Amino acid sequence: MFVFRFLRLVLRDVFSQSCLHQFLLEFVGTALFLSASPLTSGLVTSSPVCPLQVVLVFGLSVSMAALSVGGAVHLNPAVSLAMALTLRLRLWRAVLYMVGQLLGGVASALSFPSDSTACVQVSSGVRLHQAFTVEALITLQLVLVVMVTAEVPLPVGATPLLVGLTVSLGHLVAVGATGCGMNPARSFGPAAVTLNFKDHWVFWAGPILGACVAALLNDLLLRPRMFAGTVIN
Amino acid sequence: MFVFRFLRLVLRDVFSQSCLHQFLLEFVGTALFLSASPLTSGLVTSSPVCPLQVVLVFGLSVSMAALSVGGAVHLNPAVSLAMALTLRLRLWRAVLYMVGQLLGGVASALSFPSDSTACVQVSSGVRLHQAFTVEALITLQLVLVVMVTAEVPLPVGATPLLVGLTVSLGHLVAVGATGCGMNPARSFGPAAVTLNFKDHWVFWAGPILGACVAALLNDLLLRPRMFAGTVIN
Amino acid sequence: MFVFRFLRLVLRDVFSQSCLHQFLLEFVGTALFLSASPLTSGLVTSSPVCPLQVVLVFGLSVSMAALSVGGAVHLNPAVSLAMALTLRLRLWRAVLYMVGQLLGGVASALSFPSDSTACVQVSSGVRLHQAFTVEALITLQLVLVVMVTAEVPLPVGATPLLVGLTVSLGHLVAVGATGCGMNPARSFGPAAVTLNFKDHWVFWAGPILGACVAALLNDLLLRPRMFAGTVIN
Amino acid sequence: MFVFRFLRLVLRDVFSQSCLHQFLLEFVGTALFLSASPLTSGLVTSSPVCPLQVVLVFGLSVSMAALSVGGAVHLNPAVSLAMALTLRLRLWRAVLYMVGQLLGGVASALSFPSDSTACVQVSSGVRLHQAFTVEALITLQLVLVVMVTAEVPLPVGATPLLVGLTVSLGHLVAVGATGCGMNPARSFGPAAVTLNFKDHWVFWAGPILGACVAALLNDLLLRPRMFAGTVIN
Repeated sequence: MFVFRFLRLVLRDVFSQSCLHQFLLEFVGTALFLSASPLTSGLVTSSPVCPLQVVLVFGLSVSMAALSVGGAVHLNPAVSLAMALTLRLRLWRAVLYMVGQLLGGVASALSFPSDSTACVQVSSGVRLHQAFTVEALITLQLVLVVMVTAEVPLPVGATPLLVGLTVSLGHLVAVGATGCGMNPARSFGPAAVTLNFKDHWVFWAGPILGACVAALLNDLLLRPRMFAGTVIN
Repeated sequence: MFVFRFLRLVLRDVFSQSCLHQFLLEFVGTALFLSASPLTSGLVTSSPVCPLQVVLVFGLSVSMAALSVGGAVHLNPAVSLAMALTLRLRLWRAVLYMVGQLLGGVASALSFPSDSTACVQVSSGVRLHQAFTVEALITLQLVLVVMVTAEVPLPVGATPLLVGLTVSLGHLVAVGATGCGMNPARSFGPAAVTLNFKDHWVFWAGPILGACVAALLNDLLLRPRMFAGTVIN
Repeated sequence: MFVFRFLRLVLRDVFSQSCLHQFLLEFVGTALFLSASPLTSGLVTSSPVCPLQVVLVFGLSVSMAALSVGGAVHLNPAVSLAMALTLRLRLWRAVLYMVGQLLGGVASALSFPSDSTACVQVSSGVRLHQAFTVEALITLQLVLVVMVTAEVPLPVGATPLLVGLTVSLGHLVAVGATGCGMNPARSFGPAAVTLNFKDHWVFWAGPILGACVAALLNDLLLRPRMFAGTVIN
Repeated sequence: MFVFRFLRLVLRDVFSQSCLHQFLLEFVGTALFLSASPLTSGLVTSSPVCPLQVVLVFGLSVSMAALSVGGAVHLNPAVSLAMALTLRLRLWRAVLYMVGQLLGGVASALSFPSDSTACVQVSSGVRLHQAFTVEALITLQLVLVVMVTAEVPLPVGATPLLVGLTVSLGHLVAVGATGCGMNPARSFGPAAVTLNFKDHWVFWAGPILGACVAALLNDLLLRPRMFAGTVIN
């Protein structure tokens, strides 16, 4: 009886216009963001792509995608999870957004069927626990910045740029070790299309751990708050 | 009778001071923007230009040109078209602006008669439909950002910088595949001067398709609006 | 008697909630900032790291760390010293912050025990007085900018970005000569872990001299002020 | 009689506190700005400096110097001249500022007596009239942006960053052809110290022409204004 009523409330919220629109934005934004990466790796076959170019492509494309679809999108399942964990987002909405992001990742990987080069992979010589640590750390700093942009009254348009900078930093640090997943939607898309799931758990477990630690670090230590039912959005 | 009256209204609007001034700004701005590119490719003969340098030159020069002549210029026929398509700009004005932009492109190409290196060209190994897709995609993300800057109340001076960032992203992604047209005025100038129109349609059709899709995507999906006669400017 | 009363006042201020929280922020922020550097140098063993990559890593990581923990952190003993010298910060608080920063540096060096490559070292061919001058100069420009961000009412979020830019500039200029210390906490961490204190005084004396000169230059010449007991914070 | 009274007025203005303080800021700012360049070229002898590094050093150092000493400095004789030409600055003040800037350039060149590598020089293979055109063009775009920052109400702290971006653009375009003078104070300092005045007129005539054209273009065409005695500052 109670479950039934709860489910009805959830479904009513999920099928509201704002929630479906947000789902759509997550899907379109993630597909847009990730459509830049296969272009770089797939078509430019002549010259080897320098690491700085990869860094700039990902930093700029997440920035521009977030700006285009509107500043409040997450574009990253780890971010949605952290938002839900700190009661900033209702759980079912977080799940819905994640589905949208994963679909966006798959869509972008499907429409540009490059060779498997778009996959993130643990580099040879890097052990799995190292890759895991790197992925956790870069997601930690990403989610810390996202938390700030969600709380501090920044100038309009600043949030996408700041997120772009942290994504650039993550790629600078991790592109040599893991290819820089940092975002399960980005890792899942090419993996699902090429069915190459080798070491794939690293690109889920690392970001999820990093996001959870960042969420707790932010709310308990850096900007302590009483979270008494302040469900936002 | 009706046509005559309509034409008189159009001409009165076209020959108004604001419209002619804007035409002039589009001409000067495009010439200024594009005068940086032949300098890079023509004079620096000793060392090979690295791709990042090209990316930064175009991103910064469009930024600085737009800032210099005033933030509301388009400097790109595809942008003017998208603005007209979404009823943000009167059609005849869009046509006039495009003429100004194309003249600016030709003027800059004329005053720096470098070898044909300033032309955009589809790289060998890249097929035409791929080049077309790339051009459409990078113009799509450019026009999406331009739409945002036209609607969201950003801080003063932010618009040229954001446009510069999307142009940088476009060059990062496409410079290896097509030389990055993204702007028919930029492609038309050197082509008209060197009379090298090989595959030139790609650099018109791609950006125009991208701009139209971006305009519809923005107005119908991302920021739906009732466009009932709200012709701006 | 007087000393006793003074000590009691100091201790009461030190053990206040705001001061301990700030101590914690300095510790966490410095550890976060410096955890990006061993990642770059330690794990990416295949390709040689290009100087621009190092520059961007340090500039971005200090930016993101300062943004994450809150804009008012120093993350650098030289900055805290300059603030205390110009009576912007109580002396005991400055000492406490420095302890936090040094502990943060050690913590980050401990948790990523890379080879000694994370140490800053005077390059062969660069004499000690040159290294000293370089370190003093880059810290001078850093502290000048920090002074500006502390006085001028900048937009929210601008301070971390500006500090990141000056740190980038410092690395661009000094990374070839000294590895760019610029921050005793950054130099002390790896040195304490690897017990490699060769020429270590340069990375303390240079930044301290630069910070003191910058503090005096700012308060006496650039933005002269009567400092009559305006102890802030 | 009239001349005497005029001279007395001029001298009273020149010896006012605000004017002398501004003179000092121009001196300190230019010396600070230019002290980064010999560091790069003089000490780092091992690896060849890549062009992007030079671009970033100059862009960032002018940005940080202007920010440190206060946003309203010119740091460039060509800019002061353009301001005087458009009646935004009293002529005698412009002359005084130029003296300060040139002294700053000499001071920075004296204190870091590197080999003559810090001198700007027309590259072999580039003819003098080409070098002249390049210098004029990059100064034109610099002064256009400076004019905008002087008129449009930008956010606090934006002016130094925008100027840094145009200086970066200038270096990107011109560093291969002329070493990028763009600023007579920057060119004069090392030339005066090493007494190497070969082709030195290019680095005065080019920027001066560019600045004058930019000033007229801005006031007559881009942002037309009635300049009836509105002497500012």
